[in-house]
Amino acid sequence: MFHDITVEARRHLVAAARGARPLDVLIRDIRMVNVFTCEIRRADIGVFGNRIALVADPGAFEIDARAVVDGAGRIAAPGLIDPHLHIESSMVDPAHYAAAVLRHGTTTVIVDPHEIANVMGKDGVRLMIEGSEGLPLRVLFAIPSCVPAVLGHETAGARFAPEDVAEMLAWPRVIAVAEVMDYVGVGRGDPRMLGIIDAGIRAGKVIQGHAPALVGRDLVAYKAAGIENDHELRNARDAVEKLRLGLTPFVKLGSHANHLPNVMPELAKIPRFDVALCTDDVEPSDLLHVGHLNRVVREVAKYGIDPARALRWASLIPAQHYNLRDLGAIAPGYVADIVLFDGEDSLEATDVMAGGRWVVRDGAPCEPVTDPLAGRALVNTVRINTLSEDDFAIPSPIGDGPVTANIIALQPNRTTRMEATTVPARNGRIDSDTLPADVVFIAVVPRHGQAHPPSVALLSGIGLQRGAFAHTVAHDSHNILVTGKNSADMLAAVRRLAEIGGGFTLVDGGRIVAEVALPLAGLMSLKPVADVSAEVEIFNAAAASLGIRTLATPPIVAGTGLALPVVPQIRITDLHPLFDVGTQEPVPMFATAMADGTAS
Amino acid sequence: MFHDITVEARRHLVAAARGARPLDVLIRDIRMVNVFTCEIRRADIGVFGNRIALVADPGAFEIDARAVVDGAGRIAAPGLIDPHLHIESSMVDPAHYAAAVLRHGTTTVIVDPHEIANVMGKDGVRLMIEGSEGLPLRVLFAIPSCVPAVLGHETAGARFAPEDVAEMLAWPRVIAVAEVMDYVGVGRGDPRMLGIIDAGIRAGKVIQGHAPALVGRDLVAYKAAGIENDHELRNARDAVEKLRLGLTPFVKLGSHANHLPNVMPELAKIPRFDVALCTDDVEPSDLLHVGHLNRVVREVAKYGIDPARALRWASLIPAQHYNLRDLGAIAPGYVADIVLFDGEDSLEATDVMAGGRWVVRDGAPCEPVTDPLAGRALVNTVRINTLSEDDFAIPSPIGDGPVTANIIALQPNRTTRMEATTVPARNGRIDSDTLPADVVFIAVVPRHGQAHPPSVALLSGIGLQRGAFAHTVAHDSHNILVTGKNSADMLAAVRRLAEIGGGFTLVDGGRIVAEVALPLAGLMSLKPVADVSAEVEIFNAAAASLGIRTLATPPIVAGTGLALPVVPQIRITDLHPLFDVGTQEPVPMFATAMADGTAS
Repeated sequence: MFHDITVEARRHLVAAARGARPLDVLIRDIRMVNVFTCEIRRADIGVFGNRIALVADPGAFEIDARAVVDGAGRIAAPGLIDPHLHIESSMVDPAHYAAAVLRHGTTTVIVDPHEIANVMGKDGVRLMIEGSEGLPLRVLFAIPSCVPAVLGHETAGARFAPEDVAEMLAWPRVIAVAEVMDYVGVGRGDPRMLGIIDAGIRAGKVIQGHAPALVGRDLVAYKAAGIENDHELRNARDAVEKLRLGLTPFVKLGSHANHLPNVMPELAKIPRFDVALCTDDVEPSDLLHVGHLNRVVREVAKYGIDPARALRWASLIPAQHYNLRDLGAIAPGYVADIVLFDGEDSLEATDVMAGGRWVVRDGAPCEPVTDPLAGRALVNTVRINTLSEDDFAIPSPIGDGPVTANIIALQPNRTTRMEATTVPARNGRIDSDTLPADVVFIAVVPRHGQAHPPSVALLSGIGLQRGAFAHTVAHDSHNILVTGKNSADMLAAVRRLAEIGGGFTLVDGGRIVAEVALPLAGLMSLKPVADVSAEVEIFNAAAASLGIRTLATPPIVAGTGLALPVVPQIRITDLHPLFDVGTQEPVPMFATAMADGTAS
Repeated sequence: MFHDITVEARRHLVAAARGARPLDVLIRDIRMVNVFTCEIRRADIGVFGNRIALVADPGAFEIDARAVVDGAGRIAAPGLIDPHLHIESSMVDPAHYAAAVLRHGTTTVIVDPHEIANVMGKDGVRLMIEGSEGLPLRVLFAIPSCVPAVLGHETAGARFAPEDVAEMLAWPRVIAVAEVMDYVGVGRGDPRMLGIIDAGIRAGKVIQGHAPALVGRDLVAYKAAGIENDHELRNARDAVEKLRLGLTPFVKLGSHANHLPNVMPELAKIPRFDVALCTDDVEPSDLLHVGHLNRVVREVAKYGIDPARALRWASLIPAQHYNLRDLGAIAPGYVADIVLFDGEDSLEATDVMAGGRWVVRDGAPCEPVTDPLAGRALVNTVRINTLSEDDFAIPSPIGDGPVTANIIALQPNRTTRMEATTVPARNGRIDSDTLPADVVFIAVVPRHGQAHPPSVALLSGIGLQRGAFAHTVAHDSHNILVTGKNSADMLAAVRRLAEIGGGFTLVDGGRIVAEVALPLAGLMSLKPVADVSAEVEIFNAAAASLGIRTLATPPIVAGTGLALPVVPQIRITDLHPLFDVGTQEPVPMFATAMADGTAS
């Protein structure tokens, strides 16, 4: 079991269970979700210390307790367990994240600090562990496996070899190797990837997967390598195939992705199976207003899955998957993580107990946030070279006139494709003054102290009509990604980012029109979710007014995936203005620039 | 994962999965049991080294393999995993046990060497680990928690304190603390029991339960103590209550117990649940002729459980319960433990692969048994004092005439109760010549070097009409238990046991009429199961001819539980002729012998 208690404490617990000592808390006559049988039955639940001491039919035992809570028709479920997520996506630090998710009944999270690791390396992972020490939320860790995501084609702030991962696997609260994204490397038998998987297996940790669109024999090989789950289920065939191969599906509903419509109808046809539910990434405003894992459970139930079963997928199944033997159920001896919901359909948490302590009562937190990182001097991780407007210029193969360029075409579903597009050249450069309405400059500016200048390309589909939009949340290497209609605004937006230690900036006509400061690694704020959410809302409105458009996600995240060289098809990195994800090769912007003349 | 492979071997496995290397074995177009979804679907299964490399729809991939096996309409299931059993019950050593159970498709067993531990202590546990080294059967261990079963009321050959258990938990292939039988001690907060449980939890091991008939608040307290499963399900209410409390039920069908009729109909009504299946104890003849875990699966399916689900309960569920992450399924990367059954109803194993090697083909073993214990000098563990016939006499409170004695009345269901019975006295002793037909002497003779004389009582219900029946298989302390109509035959039977190093002896009129020598701790033979089974059959016939009768079990085990002071209601130990299991107190044989005069 992960959370030990002393033999003395266990002796008292057993005595309390038998009635030889009073309980600390009795929750009387509640409708309890039994995740072993998927039943909802009325029960009395007794808590002693940090554990559940008893579960019984209502009134079956005479119970002496220091405090009694009346069930009043509510549902009691195990505290929810999210098996894979990134705190960084919520733009707040662990303590403020904890406060926000506890409010929705999530009491345990398995965190992949992948983003901060790409910026700060091991120091970043350590910061997240230290920053979550002693929180009422149980924060467990998966060690990032792909830092950087792909070797040799981009520059992150760190590089993890198998030895580094092995070292971190021994750190406190570490239970997994995080999403193995480099499935191409795994299939090829790349020593880095197999070495990292091997380190995890030897340390007895779970190996998380990440294999969007991988099918057939490549998927089989990926599973054979030791991968145990996957939270990238793009369609029903994908999900069923992974389930049958023994890759536990983590069915996802977060701010950026919703598996449910694609996979639940087909999965629901299989007579017997279990999955886990996860959020992966949740925007601050969703965390504030929409929910966390309770939202996923609620939505899953709309696909004919009964609520008790969906709750099992958000508690016992993830606990079992990670061999957390005393988490994920309301049963004697288990850690007393209990959430009271107003009902099984709405799943609004009214009261939340974590480790035997009430942390939420009547929907309100019981105590203010104590942040282990408060007052800590933060390193400014935005280290850029001296830049000029010229750094954002694209030389053209002809001096003046129309020229055909390969540009990155962002699609409504957030994938990209390469499109040959006619753009104007003037004085040997692409002319920003006469660019087509939907085309903007896009640049990746090194921010990890690299000596080389920005890589610059052209982008369509993001909607920006004027000014520039820059940020340090450019997965996964988190260099600065800036899009803009002109070099001056791009430069201003980037310079402001360096001043505030990272985050998001929006510039129009040389003026900062909105910003969200994320001084913790350029990824997170140390403010509460409500504050950050308000800043983001203002930013979104400003970004929309400059034309930024997205179909399903808020404007602020419109470009955050454009530098991610593992998502099809064409991306920009700090080393390559145009990079083909499929071939893992750079692509020239202009046909005439090709030395060997093979381009069309 | 429990069974590591090197990173090099894994690289080759991944290459084989992708088709970059030939497979070692292809099992083509078999009906494969998918234990993740409880489906049976046609599949190709590829093996490389000791692992499963691929699973695919028939013909989906072009596959190059060194050897091809045609499915021919058969079923492929994961090698079966028995989560709790005692090899000693089969009266053979690990190597011969392995050969016998592999033949039925069991490829992994979790062994509780409880019997030998009670005789030889840590040396006995070590002997079982050494005796199972390198076998094709994967033999994993649970460390006995209750040696002796109850402190202070019997003498075993060893005594395990928490420190002893903690030491053994670090030995190779140890994954659990074995059945915690002293539930009374657990409930009372006994330091020995809680210390042993604590040692197990700290070492990350599973804690096995054993709580027959425990219900209500005592059961809740037992679960709160950290117990994780139970293989003693006496009735449906028991089983359902344990399931709901999170004690994984191990539904049992062995030679000595059959849970199925009592528990399966009620369990089957619960919409969603999983249990594991186990055998616990299997007689040599059943092992030879009836089956092992495949028999349990077959019988469970008769209760409306579809065979794929029953097979899941005998593979994936026990593997998950013990966190054996790469056992229990046919899936890429899992250990290649595969059993081919002729059909899902008969479940006769035709071919068995263990760790990628065929160990059974066409129903026959592929290689002779290699026994790590062969040729080893065995210690004679039957150490008795000099005895005379007088040691088996019972002094009576009156010189001559009828006297009322409390005797042990063995019931057809193997429980006992105390019955006041009139027996004859002569010359100050109970008179063997005129005993009622159904009454015999029963004695426990110290065999662990204790200085005290035998304890002697009277027994009804075993059927013996003449002669004596002695053995060293007297759970759990394994002193010699002898029943007889007269002292001379009892003495002869006991003396013969000491000569042969333990086992079973039957004496009639001073002559040895049958015996089974079990020189390994007085519990096991080093011969094959077939040989031991034949000896047992002969013994059973001889025992029956002397009148020994049992309802459901063979005569040889008729008395093996009579010295077990944890099974209700009245038992005999080496220290107490009559011992009340409920009160854990000795009981006087004669009312008049009571000093305080309270007896009726």
